[in-house]
Amino acid sequence: MKQKILTGDRPTGSLHLGHYIGSLQNRIQLQHTYDQYILVADLQALTDHFDHPEKITTHIIEVVKDYLSVGIDPNQTTIFIQSRIPEIAELTIYYLNLVTLNRLSRNPTVKHEMDQKGYDEAIPLGFLCYPISQAADITLFQAEWVPVGDDQLPMIEQTNEIVRRFNRIYGTNVLKECKAVLSKTSRLVGIDGKSKCSKSLGNAIALSDPPEVIKQKVFQMYTDPDHIKVSHPGRVEGNVVFAYLDAFHNDQEAIASLKAHYRRGGLGDVAIKNILNDSLQLFLAPIREKRNCLDASMVKEILHHGTIKAAELAKETMKMVREAMGIKFT
Amino acid sequence: MKQKILTGDRPTGSLHLGHYIGSLQNRIQLQHTYDQYILVADLQALTDHFDHPEKITTHIIEVVKDYLSVGIDPNQTTIFIQSRIPEIAELTIYYLNLVTLNRLSRNPTVKHEMDQKGYDEAIPLGFLCYPISQAADITLFQAEWVPVGDDQLPMIEQTNEIVRRFNRIYGTNVLKECKAVLSKTSRLVGIDGKSKCSKSLGNAIALSDPPEVIKQKVFQMYTDPDHIKVSHPGRVEGNVVFAYLDAFHNDQEAIASLKAHYRRGGLGDVAIKNILNDSLQLFLAPIREKRNCLDASMVKEILHHGTIKAAELAKETMKMVREAMGIKFT
Repeated sequence: MKQKILTGDRPTGSLHLGHYIGSLQNRIQLQHTYDQYILVADLQALTDHFDHPEKITTHIIEVVKDYLSVGIDPNQTTIFIQSRIPEIAELTIYYLNLVTLNRLSRNPTVKHEMDQKGYDEAIPLGFLCYPISQAADITLFQAEWVPVGDDQLPMIEQTNEIVRRFNRIYGTNVLKECKAVLSKTSRLVGIDGKSKCSKSLGNAIALSDPPEVIKQKVFQMYTDPDHIKVSHPGRVEGNVVFAYLDAFHNDQEAIASLKAHYRRGGLGDVAIKNILNDSLQLFLAPIREKRNCLDASMVKEILHHGTIKAAELAKETMKMVREAMGIKFT
Repeated sequence: MKQKILTGDRPTGSLHLGHYIGSLQNRIQLQHTYDQYILVADLQALTDHFDHPEKITTHIIEVVKDYLSVGIDPNQTTIFIQSRIPEIAELTIYYLNLVTLNRLSRNPTVKHEMDQKGYDEAIPLGFLCYPISQAADITLFQAEWVPVGDDQLPMIEQTNEIVRRFNRIYGTNVLKECKAVLSKTSRLVGIDGKSKCSKSLGNAIALSDPPEVIKQKVFQMYTDPDHIKVSHPGRVEGNVVFAYLDAFHNDQEAIASLKAHYRRGGLGDVAIKNILNDSLQLFLAPIREKRNCLDASMVKEILHHGTIKAAELAKETMKMVREAMGIKFT
């Protein structure tokens, strides 16, 4: 039997090239070797979008279309919606008893995000507790592997702490620790060159962007601000166009000679942007075509089947959890 | 249609005379005028008994026997088990987004209990969050009335704050504020005279105590430590025996003259304890008899039906809540 792997995304916007490089291309591979579950994390998205839930619901279908259009295969991957599995909330409530306030406040990921959002003590409890909810996600679906970036390793550690504490207190081994699958590829920079691609920063090329928007974004890309004249030498490092060429051009030898040309001078930004635009159009056209063949009812059907399968696994785990806790009541 | 009222108990031990005076006798009356729901709060009990869940499960049946034996009528009152209604966990998870950490830490009831248990920052999140879980209990069952002691008024305020915030954010009025039904009777003191009756302090007479245990506890009662000789005057104030005679003797005129006699001297502690013992035996005998006619399978049947009825109401509320939040996904 294949080992289970769990991944997911908050449905708060279209997926973009950063998602592709950071996780989607891995998932396309992983679905062959693992029993892969992808959770559309609407409950988790609510923890910082509770006042705009419509942002989440409208994106559920779109995010699943993104999955399918890049090659996530619903016959190999179970795609389901977090809020449709009430056992996640139930397990989260049990886990809340096993984690103290100061342990959670020390979680580096929580600390970082608290600082970033400027929450301080006014942090909503739902947001504070989301690592516990993630532990419920992972363990409910018996995931032995979780693909994460290295900034999310504290989440894996938090999950495994809960697993060990649960198993020790209830004298059981029904919960399994999970292991991180660290992404090999580094993060894709945004078109502004300042930070990684982000839905909220609006510096990303979406998988579903139409050709003219892709071109427009390529031509907005940050290059080398000191490269005033075509004949002057230009900098490749920190140049967003080359970062994207590295990631998406299919002839890396050609890119190497292009970089050398740019460095010694004589290669203009318009030229490299045109090359990148051709590359990205080539890469994104079949994804967009596949996407255009998908309608909402097909996506709902896939989610319906995925959620049924996920619910069966959730019920199986909760039965074991309740029995281990001795709160089975008949 | 009758208005709904919600009460409940943590199933962590047998109910005692303090429960009878503080709440059970009210509930016996309230079930005629209200649509009464009684929640056996096993999830809430887990928040500070998570490491001994067997203490909870073994008491569920016993607590319900206590209800039935004092006259709670399952045809008028819906008795159900908290952990059997997964919507409570789900609604709690939504409410966690609406309450900040510092708001919850300012809740006087939480502060008091944190101090009492010496938790400080090592407070388990489940315990910290239990006012939010209570708000889910109250609103999920659409309770307009909640019987509480005055020390629990902050819980009602916390619930109504969540209700107002939910309705404002989601532009709805599906959640209703609730009102406290303040208990008219004061708390019954424990047999040690030091504090109120408490399961955990072991200073209470259980509704299910056998006759000899009742007698033994009556004879352990704190009276007037300065009342050395029968002929001496004795103090009625702070005398546990008189507190119980006030509460349980059915001839309050006789008690008034007994008090006068005790005050002026010539009435011994053994004499008043015998009178109280007779009273309590008379009061508790029919309760015990009714209890002896109940077996576990009858209780389970009642809980089964109560839980089905409560689940229907829970599903109705959650449908409205999800629609209001716009997270209905079809």
